[in-house]
Formats: sequence, C-alpha cells, structure tokens
Amino acid sequence: MVTHTSCNPSLVTATRRLASSLSSSRGRDAVRLLPSYLADARSVVRYSPEHPQGALQLGVAESLMLEDWLVPALNRPFSIPANAIYYQPTQGRADFIDTMAVYIEDLLQLQPLRLKRENLIVGAGCNAVLENLCFTLAEAGESVLIPTPYYAAFEFDLVARAGLRVEPVTTQDYQTKPQDAQIYFPNTAALNAAYERCLQQQSTPKILLLSHPHNPLGICYPPSVVEECIQWCRERQIHLISDEIYAGSVYGETFVSALQLADRNDEGLGPYVHWVYALSKDFALSGLRVGAAYTENEEIVLPLQKLNDLCCISSTTQLWTKMILEHEMEGGESWVHAFRRMNHSRLMQRSAQLTAVLDEFQIPYLTPTAGLFVWIDLSRYLPSDSQLTPSEQERKLYLELVHTYGLLLTPGLSMKNEQPGFFRCVFTAATEEEFALSLQRLRTFATQKS
Amino acid sequence: MVTHTSCNPSLVTATRRLASSLSSSRGRDAVRLLPSYLADARSVVRYSPEHPQGALQLGVAESLMLEDWLVPALNRPFSIPANAIYYQPTQGRADFIDTMAVYIEDLLQLQPLRLKRENLIVGAGCNAVLENLCFTLAEAGESVLIPTPYYAAFEFDLVARAGLRVEPVTTQDYQTKPQDAQIYFPNTAALNAAYERCLQQQSTPKILLLSHPHNPLGICYPPSVVEECIQWCRERQIHLISDEIYAGSVYGETFVSALQLADRNDEGLGPYVHWVYALSKDFALSGLRVGAAYTENEEIVLPLQKLNDLCCISSTTQLWTKMILEHEMEGGESWVHAFRRMNHSRLMQRSAQLTAVLDEFQIPYLTPTAGLFVWIDLSRYLPSDSQLTPSEQERKLYLELVHTYGLLLTPGLSMKNEQPGFFRCVFTAATEEEFALSLQRLRTFATQKS
Repeated sequence: MVTHTSCNPSLVTATRRLASSLSSSRGRDAVRLLPSYLADARSVVRYSPEHPQGALQLGVAESLMLEDWLVPALNRPFSIPANAIYYQPTQGRADFIDTMAVYIEDLLQLQPLRLKRENLIVGAGCNAVLENLCFTLAEAGESVLIPTPYYAAFEFDLVARAGLRVEPVTTQDYQTKPQDAQIYFPNTAALNAAYERCLQQQSTPKILLLSHPHNPLGICYPPSVVEECIQWCRERQIHLISDEIYAGSVYGETFVSALQLADRNDEGLGPYVHWVYALSKDFALSGLRVGAAYTENEEIVLPLQKLNDLCCISSTTQLWTKMILEHEMEGGESWVHAFRRMNHSRLMQRSAQLTAVLDEFQIPYLTPTAGLFVWIDLSRYLPSDSQLTPSEQERKLYLELVHTYGLLLTPGLSMKNEQPGFFRCVFTAATEEEFALSLQRLRTFATQKS
Repeated sequence: MVTHTSCNPSLVTATRRLASSLSSSRGRDAVRLLPSYLADARSVVRYSPEHPQGALQLGVAESLMLEDWLVPALNRPFSIPANAIYYQPTQGRADFIDTMAVYIEDLLQLQPLRLKRENLIVGAGCNAVLENLCFTLAEAGESVLIPTPYYAAFEFDLVARAGLRVEPVTTQDYQTKPQDAQIYFPNTAALNAAYERCLQQQSTPKILLLSHPHNPLGICYPPSVVEECIQWCRERQIHLISDEIYAGSVYGETFVSALQLADRNDEGLGPYVHWVYALSKDFALSGLRVGAAYTENEEIVLPLQKLNDLCCISSTTQLWTKMILEHEMEGGESWVHAFRRMNHSRLMQRSAQLTAVLDEFQIPYLTPTAGLFVWIDLSRYLPSDSQLTPSEQERKLYLELVHTYGLLLTPGLSMKNEQPGFFRCVFTAATEEEFALSLQRLRTFATQKS
C-alpha cells in the first residue's frame, strides 16, 4: 500500500479550487503592476513639524504651490442647476465639453473652433480616458510602445484591465552623455526595433504612447521628433497617443502639441493621432479627476463615448471646473492665463533653485523646461559592490537617499530607464520650508558622498 | 489564364488590414451591447409644452419628483478644503467612506459599525464599482448568472470591458399567472440548470448577480429566496453580488438586505457575498456618479481599491455628498430620514395612481412595492399576426405604444424576459402634469385596444 503522509491529493485539489474561486488572477495581477519602490517607502516616517527628521517628498508629481490661487477659485459662489442631478451624456455635458475645447485650443495654440466638440470626451482622470482610448484601438494582448524612461503607472493603466502589453522603446546610447536630451528621443530605428520585438513575441504592435511634455524627463520633444513619430505611425498604421498632461506646465521653451504637428497641412489628424489630457498637473487638481481625450478617428468616437459611462465625471465637478476655466479677473483678463503665468514663474524659480545645487556639485541632469521635475543622474553615487545587480545597486542608493538623507525621489529603473542611478526629482510637492530643507539635505548628500 | 475581374486579392487584404487597424473589435462590440430598442425611440419627438403630442417618458428609471428637496440641499453653503485638490485614496476619502458606512448601516438596518470601513469602496457609479468587483472575482470568459428579466445595461457593464459572459437564469413557468411574483424567483433547480448551461458552453459559472430590490419587477425578493441563493452560492463556491441600488426606495414592504441574511449567525459575510449600491436611484442623483461596493473577501479588497483608481469620484463630490448625508434638520432629525419618508410617500402615491388605471382595465401586473416602476403584462395586446416572431410582435406593440399612444415604456424582451408583451413602466420620470397625461393615454390605449 502506498501511503501519502505529506499530502492528501483530494485536499490539495479542494484547496486549490478554493484559492482560485476566491479571486481572479487578473485582479491579483493588477496589484503587482504597481511599482515596488512605493512599497519600500510606505513605512518611512514623513517630514512634519513633529518629525523634523522625516523624509521629504520629492517623488510624487504633484504641485503644492498653487493652493493660494486654487482654493479661493474652488470656493467662489456657485449654484447647481436642477439638470445636474440627472444622468448626463456619457461623454460629458455639452456645455463643459465646449468650455474644455476652448481651453485646449488656447492652451495648444490651435485655431478657435479647431476641435470638433463631438470628438472630445471628458472622463474621470487621464488614466481613465487613456485606458478607454486604448480599449477602442487595440485588442487584449496587443502592444503599446513607450519610449523609456516612462511614467510607471502607464503599466497599470494599460495592462490591468485593458490587457495590453507594454513594449519599451529603448533609445539610449550608453556612450553618449546622459545629460544630452537627444539620447532619449525615439527615432525610426528605435521604433522599428521595438516593432520587431513585439512581432517576435507574437504580439501586434498597435499604439505608440508619447509623454509630451515628457514625464519623467522634464522636457518637451522637439517638433522634428514628434513629426518623425507621427510619420512612422501613419506609415505603419500604428496609433499615436500624445499624452500632453503637462502642456500647461512648459516654462522654459515653447511647447508644440502633437495636434498642431499632425495637422500641419490642415487636413485633419486622420485616424492615427490621438490626444489625452487632464487638469491634475497644470492645475494641481488631481483630486477632481478631470481628464479629456480627443480623436478624429470616427470609428472609435461612439465606442469611446459609451465606454466613458464607466468613468464619468460628476456633473457638479464638470460645472465647477467650467466656472474656473471661464472665470475672468477684474479688468477682464482670463483667470486661467494669469494662473498659468504665475505657475510658470513659480516652476521656473523652483527648478532654478534645484539646478543651482546640482551645478554646485556638478551632478549631471537634463536641463528642465517643462513639468514638475528634473531628471538627475546620480549614477556616480551607486554603490560599487560588484555582487549587486544594477537594479540592486539603484535600490540601495534609493534607500540610502530615503533613510540616511531623508529624500524621497523616484528611482529611474522603476520608470524603465535603461541605466541605473537616475532619479526623477519633483520640486513642487514640498512647501517653501520643506523645499529649502530638501536642497540643504541634497547638499549634505553630495558633500558626504564626494 | 484565370482572370479576377471582381476583386484584387492584395487590395482586399490591404483594405481588411486598414479596417482592422482603425479600431478594436472590442470597442465596436461594446456599442452593440446597448439595447436596440433605445435606437428605435431615439428619433421620437418627446413631450414638451411645444410638442403636446410628443411621447411621454415612462422608460428611464429616474425620479423627477425630488428636485424640490435635492436642489436646495446641493446648494447649501459649502466650503472646499485645500486637501481636496490633491490625489485622494483610490478607494475614496476616509471621511466620506465612514459617512457612507454609517448611512448604509442605517439604510440596511445593520448594527452600527457592522461594516468594516476598509472593505467599503466608493467609485464613479454603480456600474463602475460592479465592473471592478467582477474583474476581481472572475476571469474573462467566465459567466455571470442573472435571473430574468434583468436590467439591460448589466450586459454592457459586465461584457464590454470585463469580458464576462452573461447566463440568464430562467425561472418562469409559462403555466402560472404572470402576476404571481414567485414565477420570477430563482431557486436551486433554476440555478443548477443555468450552471449546467455554462459548463456546456465551456464557461465557468463564477458569479450570481441579484437585483434586490428587483429592477424591472418593482418588488423585493422574499428573504427565503435570497437565503436559498446565498446557500447555493456558498455550496458551489459561486460569488453572489446583491445589487441593492433601490434599497432606499422600498415603500410597500419591509426590505431585508442580502448583507443581513448572509450574516444571520454573526459569522460575517464570508468570501462569497458582495454588495453594490449607488445614490442614483434612492436620491435621484445619477449625475453625481456616487457608487459603493462592499465585500469581506480579503483577497479582493486590495485589487478592488487599486482598480478603483480608474473610476474615482471627484473629491468635491465626495465632500458634497458627505454634507448631504450628514445634514440635520431643525429639531435634529436626520435630513436623510425625512427625505426618505417623503420619497416613499410620493412613490406610493404614484404607483397607486398607475395601478388604479391598470385595475380599471384588468391589465395584469406585479403588485409593486419597491423601485420606480411597475412590471406590466400587456401580452394580450400583442398583434396576433402569426407571421411575426414573438420578438417582432413585442417590437410592434412597443412602437405602437410610442407612435400611436405617445407612451415610452421599456419592452420586456430587451430585459431578457422569457415571454413577449411585458413592459416596465416607470412612474417617476414624468412631471405631475406629464404623469396625469400618461395615465390618460394609457386609458385611451386600453380602451381602444379592448
């Protein structure tokens, strides 16, 4: 007689069945898509007056510098009409879509009325409208190409429910200086290589996603780079999505939207160029979840409108945002223009303060012109322990920055950067006092490590 | 030599490729999931003072009877704190979740603090939280069992992005009188039969979705029916989701929530019983997109919280709703209690007016006790043309009601009812004047057709 002392097969089967019946693998996998470095930092004590040694927040791409303008704007007298309580059009209220279109045309310097109102969809955040856009463009298992480094949460947004595959577009020539922006620019050769890698993996490349202005690089792509991408996409029948969520936060150069470039000949965007945006960055209103998607691909407009039913913006938030975007100041100037001017000047000031410290210690960085962050090369401070993998080296430096120097930055490998030791440093998520302290700590770090 | 005059194969291939590259099949299919009867009625002129012959709205499950309470409540003085502008916890603000938990415990007559706050998730509408709940419970291709007739949009919510399969649970014995509610009750035999049909289709049955109180039937399931479903689910390791979006609109009996029944022995809900809700029906606030999901299945809580990032409620809407739910009237009575009492009395009055007309013409119906509608049997008015399929017969009657009598009802077959000629008649979506006119038109219909 064969005895099974270690396990009872029927019990194992029952347990396995129970385990699989309690939850779906796709639900469990969704959680795993979130960057692991966040878990590393979860237990870290944060800076506060009670914890003056706590870690300072230079990792979350949020601006804490705009409350003095935004809170009064949100608290202006405001009346909610009866029609707001009922079901709204799934793609958004017509009056709010018009307000958003006018705002976007001004922001991107398009002709007034250039945007077709029926092709603009507003939904609960950039992630929500991006996900739906990808749902309407690609089947599960197809690939989205994204130049590296990229915003880590794209993987969650594109994979968790839409079931897409992310193919990094690698562009970095290791022999070139990392502070040269052009090493990060996607070109036809890099795109072709990524395309081929998808096919080798039996996955159809379907979408190229550009972050423009770029997160985490803190710069805009030059128009020629975006144009090359547009041309490549149109030739290959690949969809280009330009995520321009930082379009209103370009303070050091002139921003040229993909929508402008794709329509240079006034022939329209065609079916392969799409655009997403939200008020989370340029207005620091991430809590309001106001995103927008635009396309001139008529085949996806109706699907996009209908899928948007699953991520609608509250009617009251639409009305509220409309009020803010349309507000005129005394003298008739647009509040949005004045706000943007003020924001640019604050962004410029903070970024200059940060880069001055970096210059002082000759720490390489990409000269920032857009967004809320600077892309910094700290690779010279990586531990030289040859036992460690590049990933372990970077994690060690990341944890040293957090625990020894009280600086919370975003590690580059979490954003699929190709070389270890690069960090995104957000300069807007701290108060004036905290920011001054973080510069001081950065100096201490650089001094002690030199 | 073989000549191909009719088609150029390479051109066909190119065209096919182009067609498939413009949009995804899942995007196109999503649109097809929407009920077709809505398209039938889209061009119909609606009733208005300018179009007194226009069709009256008895189809959309909305209440237009509550503006006098809701609009002043929404316009109460209200101040938005600075912390509302930033990213919020993906599952909802802690203060709002607590308010919702207190509200739900009161609504469902649960013990105070019975609901674990960390297991309650608030998201942008019942559809959004239901979809995410199903994502975390079932894989694509697995089946959701739903007793017939059912809310037509469930198919969109469950299939469009989550990729689930809907298996109707058929319960109706054609020999029994359709005004007997019990013919609609799911029982073990009906559930077993549906379970087997799933297996025959190579799809794993994973979820049983109950609408309780029932849409479109306008009644609650008796506790014994819900208990039988819970027991069946637990034995089969199937997830039961109780959609209780009409829990606050029960005016003709005592409502017993599945959460109460599943926890009769104070042992908790266990991993197989889940709950969804929204403020769209009980408060007629569908435009605000405030939904909630509750589960005690610890395996899915984190996935559910994270997926909720794709359908967050605006922070300001959370704060606003909190204010409404917590408001006390002069004298200290809860505004919510007074509102509910008022709403019940209005629902009762309207439903009594409608059923009086039905009684007058001996039109069979289910005695309504909950929700915004009555389930009416108009099968005796179906055209007797034997050339027509049952579906064509019902569509003909539906279009006759719209075009000849100006009455927009929801046809039963669009809700997968098993017999033709049944309609859901919403009695709350019309003004007083419109409702009086619709009763008059119903009389005309019944008189002329008798």
